Amino acid sequence: MVKDVIYPRCAIIGIGLIGGSFALAGKRAGVLGHVVGMARTEATRKAALEIGAADTVTDGPAEACDGADLVYLATPVGAIPGLLPQIADELAEGCTVTDAGSTKAAIVAAAREVLPEHVTFIGGHPMAGSEQSSIAAARADLFEGSVYFLTADDHTNAAALDKLRQSIEALGAVPTLCDAGQHDRIVAATSHLPHLVACALARSVAEVVSAQGDVTPYIGKGFADSTRLAAGPTDVWCDILLANREHMAEGLGRLVLELQSFTATLRDGDAEALARLLDDARHAREELLGR
Amino acid sequence: MVKDVIYPRCAIIGIGLIGGSFALAGKRAGVLGHVVGMARTEATRKAALEIGAADTVTDGPAEACDGADLVYLATPVGAIPGLLPQIADELAEGCTVTDAGSTKAAIVAAAREVLPEHVTFIGGHPMAGSEQSSIAAARADLFEGSVYFLTADDHTNAAALDKLRQSIEALGAVPTLCDAGQHDRIVAATSHLPHLVACALARSVAEVVSAQGDVTPYIGKGFADSTRLAAGPTDVWCDILLANREHMAEGLGRLVLELQSFTATLRDGDAEALARLLDDARHAREELLGR
Repeated sequence: MVKDVIYPRCAIIGIGLIGGSFALAGKRAGVLGHVVGMARTEATRKAALEIGAADTVTDGPAEACDGADLVYLATPVGAIPGLLPQIADELAEGCTVTDAGSTKAAIVAAAREVLPEHVTFIGGHPMAGSEQSSIAAARADLFEGSVYFLTADDHTNAAALDKLRQSIEALGAVPTLCDAGQHDRIVAATSHLPHLVACALARSVAEVVSAQGDVTPYIGKGFADSTRLAAGPTDVWCDILLANREHMAEGLGRLVLELQSFTATLRDGDAEALARLLDDARHAREELLGR
Repeated sequence: MVKDVIYPRCAIIGIGLIGGSFALAGKRAGVLGHVVGMARTEATRKAALEIGAADTVTDGPAEACDGADLVYLATPVGAIPGLLPQIADELAEGCTVTDAGSTKAAIVAAAREVLPEHVTFIGGHPMAGSEQSSIAAARADLFEGSVYFLTADDHTNAAALDKLRQSIEALGAVPTLCDAGQHDRIVAATSHLPHLVACALARSVAEVVSAQGDVTPYIGKGFADSTRLAAGPTDVWCDILLANREHMAEGLGRLVLELQSFTATLRDGDAEALARLLDDARHAREELLGR
């Protein structure tokens, strides 16, 4: 018996790592029927067809949305608000539009302003990804076990939200409702600050050891892990950090203060104070990890 | 045919994770004969016997060294210089003394001043470990594939150095000669700075999100990895950071400057400058990792 798909026709706008993985996972789970993949470059469109992420492809967002039951916006986050007016007139009655941007407030506000009344916009943010960003890295299991944030408020169409939640559960992810503004404030600290710190740390270490010859024997797992995020794609992260820059100021300021505390404690050789800082750091981390 | 062991009698002073693993690995590889394990607490001495890391145990460093061919100092790094005068009079002619401290210059200087002419001191630093520090976590394969730094200069007895290098190779580690002062300058940046940053980051994130309720859905692999080092044992790391505090100032100062660059770039919304910072960070990291 063939189960009815939830979205017979789905448009993926920006079919890279995230969009391609959503398509693969959605097809495998029987959530998505026909998938139209939109990408700017021919190489990406070709790859999307080859790996089976898309059934047909286009190079324009408007034509991709024609007749779609679900429109999935997976471009870099900074491009999403600009996409909305391009697709607004193409959206059919009852269509659901969602996105995979790492920040939510600006996108939700733009959608509210630009999209017609007869469609439902629900912001999304899958807490999944990798150091890759291209369609070549797309995987049907990318979202398995991951939190998948969805923004909704009192105006959100309940039936549309329910269908999207069911679909995300079917991908193996954990749909988690959030407030767009609170989401952005929190990820500024928990996700975007660590990214920026990994970059600043990699640059600092390189600078300090630049006069010391080959230091590769000195590079252990600690350095590799603590700077892993710096391996992420520049275009994607440039966009994310700029989109959330107002919320990042607090964490950056706090971090500089913390580093100054450590510096002063080391300068004074204060073993008791240093032990307290290290103990507190371990406990703070354990609490955040829910241990 | 039983191969002759390299060190028929070995004293491990401070038989925890590192000392216990050295004993287990050395016995397995046929490098060590009888191992005397010294620990302050009875629980550790009992555990060392139970897991087969020690053949006999003592609670005093001097008596452990009686008749030893190799003395392995594996206490927290800050305690090593103070141990040397306690054992100096017990060391037999031809004995080799080494240590596993994460900083080297102060220990090498103390050994040169305190130990008798008829013994050879070679500083050591295995680039291995875990978030654990107790004998319970000791493993015969802890050093496999790891760099193992050894300090030597023109005055070092070549035959003694050769025996220790062979032994370390037999454990599966990669003996790597270094200058004590340069070692300390480099690890300040490549190892100790990342540790401190992980702690400062964990504290900053906890502080910023403290008013936001349960944020565990927002905590992903990125945060976990970039703060993993903060899970390390406070006593061990307090000691290491204080031992190397003079060399850490440069990296800490540089990091604060980097964070200020990022902050200014975000404040100005300068996408090009931000992309350059991110690109440079990725390249710097790849170069350090030898990719």
